[in-house]
Amino acid sequence: MTRKKTASRDYNVLYGVHPVVETIKAGRRPVHEVYLARDPAGSHELKAFVEGTTVPLVRVSADQIQSIAGSLHHQGVAAKVGPFPYTDFQEILSTGSSRSGLLVILDEVQDPANLGSILRSAECLGACAVMLAKDRAVPITPAVEKASSGAAAHVPVARVVNLVRAIEQLKREGWWIYAADSRGASSCFSVDLSGRASIVLGSEGRGIRRLVRERCDGSLFIPMTGKVGSLNVSQAAAIILAESLRQRLLT
Amino acid sequence: MTRKKTASRDYNVLYGVHPVVETIKAGRRPVHEVYLARDPAGSHELKAFVEGTTVPLVRVSADQIQSIAGSLHHQGVAAKVGPFPYTDFQEILSTGSSRSGLLVILDEVQDPANLGSILRSAECLGACAVMLAKDRAVPITPAVEKASSGAAAHVPVARVVNLVRAIEQLKREGWWIYAADSRGASSCFSVDLSGRASIVLGSEGRGIRRLVRERCDGSLFIPMTGKVGSLNVSQAAAIILAESLRQRLLT
Repeated sequence: MTRKKTASRDYNVLYGVHPVVETIKAGRRPVHEVYLARDPAGSHELKAFVEGTTVPLVRVSADQIQSIAGSLHHQGVAAKVGPFPYTDFQEILSTGSSRSGLLVILDEVQDPANLGSILRSAECLGACAVMLAKDRAVPITPAVEKASSGAAAHVPVARVVNLVRAIEQLKREGWWIYAADSRGASSCFSVDLSGRASIVLGSEGRGIRRLVRERCDGSLFIPMTGKVGSLNVSQAAAIILAESLRQRLLT
Repeated sequence: MTRKKTASRDYNVLYGVHPVVETIKAGRRPVHEVYLARDPAGSHELKAFVEGTTVPLVRVSADQIQSIAGSLHHQGVAAKVGPFPYTDFQEILSTGSSRSGLLVILDEVQDPANLGSILRSAECLGACAVMLAKDRAVPITPAVEKASSGAAAHVPVARVVNLVRAIEQLKREGWWIYAADSRGASSCFSVDLSGRASIVLGSEGRGIRRLVRERCDGSLFIPMTGKVGSLNVSQAAAIILAESLRQRLLT
């Protein structure tokens, strides 16, 4: 329902300090207006930042900001912005050679908090892009952007209709695709993640779909020593992204 | 308020499948009764598991389970259990030599979701223990145990009144204590985390308190390449724990 509504509107309402500030800084989508509640803590800095740009700043009441944001987590600020600027998959295919960093492919990650968290790690740890299956993952909603602490504004995110076909195309372009799987074949610390490498992560409950997993070049696991034996998908993503970055810093 | 209430009762009410199952498996605190709603999905497996133990199983209605759990996230199951079994700091000091794994020290981590997430990573990635400042961190509440997906049942957690004094004691016992800090002196990939090493993590907003940081042997950062430049504290913990485990697997 939300997805349909988002897609049919030509704007989004972002909320929270980081999503609004990082979206303006990134300059990747139009920012029509910023709404600032009269007395939020730390609003001076934010006000000065917005006034240093060409974006109109509207002062509103605390009640109004909540109604504009449609969420309790607004921190006194919201912004009317253009739709999320998805990156074209073809662009990732063609620029993948020049842009370094791990490519993160998400199959069925449905939790906005997990998706936001993964986008934040992807941005901080230099992923080249994040790829989502269009009908199998949450889109980049304002809630996801808030959970990413504004990082979503900077990471290239592509949506593809058919993940299996996209993986085939990536492989033809020389990418190595690994499925992250607790029963995987190799430790993530022993696999080369420094080149044109891509990691596929699935949903926490069901993992990666069989058809997707079968198209991967290999599977990797994060070594674990505990009794519970299952990391949250966003922690798994952070660990694999950091390992990829560690390897790249060595080369 | 919650802290006082928890401390004055001699039992806790856990909720959610993993916290209940892992607490029974761990055998570290009394489990008085398990409450199971009549028709939750997947209740057969859970019912069979509990019936294989000596813990009394009480069937209740969906309304009752919510009132017993005091949370919406009960997944149809709750349990009346003894208080969380904190580990004595002296025990960590004395067994630290025999038990391998990074020691995680949390200064002012106030968010139950972050704390639960850190406990989960600590358990999966073989931390020897997690240490909290008694008045500067959330205690291990049922919400934290739910966020840890049951992992809290297995990780030794110690609470100390004075973190600075505890760090001094650890240093005398041969531990190396590193403060995690985005402006740290060394990359986490270049520091030896394979021995008696400990990492101090602070709150997301304010970081580690100055007095605590000054007592550490050194500081380390996670290399980052992005524009946002700040990972969530639970992602940072997961990355450093994984790096410590990677180093231990090499030796």
